[in-house]
Amino acid sequence: MTILDVCGWTEYRDHLPDVRVVVTGLHPEIRGRYGTIIRRGIALDRVNPADYHAVAIPGGFPDYGYGEISDPRVHKLLRAVHTQGGTLATLCIGNIVVAEAGLLRGKRATTYPHSEGDNFAPLRAAGAILDDAPVVVDDRIISCRGPGQAIEVALLLLDDIIGPEASAEIGKYIVAGKAVNDRREPTSRNRE
Amino acid sequence: MTILDVCGWTEYRDHLPDVRVVVTGLHPEIRGRYGTIIRRGIALDRVNPADYHAVAIPGGFPDYGYGEISDPRVHKLLRAVHTQGGTLATLCIGNIVVAEAGLLRGKRATTYPHSEGDNFAPLRAAGAILDDAPVVVDDRIISCRGPGQAIEVALLLLDDIIGPEASAEIGKYIVAGKAVNDRREPTSRNRE
Repeated sequence: MTILDVCGWTEYRDHLPDVRVVVTGLHPEIRGRYGTIIRRGIALDRVNPADYHAVAIPGGFPDYGYGEISDPRVHKLLRAVHTQGGTLATLCIGNIVVAEAGLLRGKRATTYPHSEGDNFAPLRAAGAILDDAPVVVDDRIISCRGPGQAIEVALLLLDDIIGPEASAEIGKYIVAGKAVNDRREPTSRNRE
Repeated sequence: MTILDVCGWTEYRDHLPDVRVVVTGLHPEIRGRYGTIIRRGIALDRVNPADYHAVAIPGGFPDYGYGEISDPRVHKLLRAVHTQGGTLATLCIGNIVVAEAGLLRGKRATTYPHSEGDNFAPLRAAGAILDDAPVVVDDRIISCRGPGQAIEVALLLLDDIIGPEASAEIGKYIVAGKAVNDRREPTSRNRE
């Protein structure tokens, strides 16, 4: 939802290019665990990767339907968008499906640290280099520890799509504030 | 939406009291400008203020239906909940309706600073003392500058409902992080 909102602000700033977010998924409606609903814009099977600059992957609760994300069609989409130079932005455990897609080998990444299970295990198994920073960027793959980093992830995604200057302008209008800007400095970042 | 999500995490932490958020409004569905939908849990006319510890007031875009919030029934609800000792948590321009309700006289407050119009004017006209901090708390009324402060506002609201220790635990589980915690220190705060 933060990705939708933050990218939405590009519509509000007339002189910036609009960053349109198209919601895809396996069901016509995606229901958040805590009462919000997002309507799907396009069915997963109809997504043409060439039409997109990036994929944003939310986190979720495996016991509440999130497990469905581990789907070969999702892995295929992620590989296609990344291979064509696109960015993958993940929230919380959204990074695990990137690991499953084989895209984290030799790359630095993080994930949600407070689950009962060990979310770092699938990253390690997929050859990722684990990193302690709240937000990690490596080879156009953005990962973070939790919901608290959602705005920072959204702004890093906008860095790649519309450039850091336009992204900073959005940061100003959502009042992302000094704290997020400070955090963006020590963000673990590696761009080849 | 951040209020729904952050309060929702109290369900996830079994030993903490659940903080249930009931969505009210003038329409059965509330649609965010950027693609999210929240279903109303109870019609505004059926809300009994005595049933609630707090009211959270989102921000919005006046040109996209948000103007409807300036309604005498909303003012009455805010006055009732505040008078009985409840907290009012506002995001962005959500504070203006609190000013309209006559609850900001002599109290410190802030609001969204980047609109074309001057959002501070209605606060000033209602007798508020304007404050530059990103988040301001005065007499159980929480106000902030923009969407970037949403998590902090949600955690400050939880401070009042379940206490600062339980609120800090939620902060840990959503990985609100050092940056938010640091910001909570200089937060302008005044509690009689």
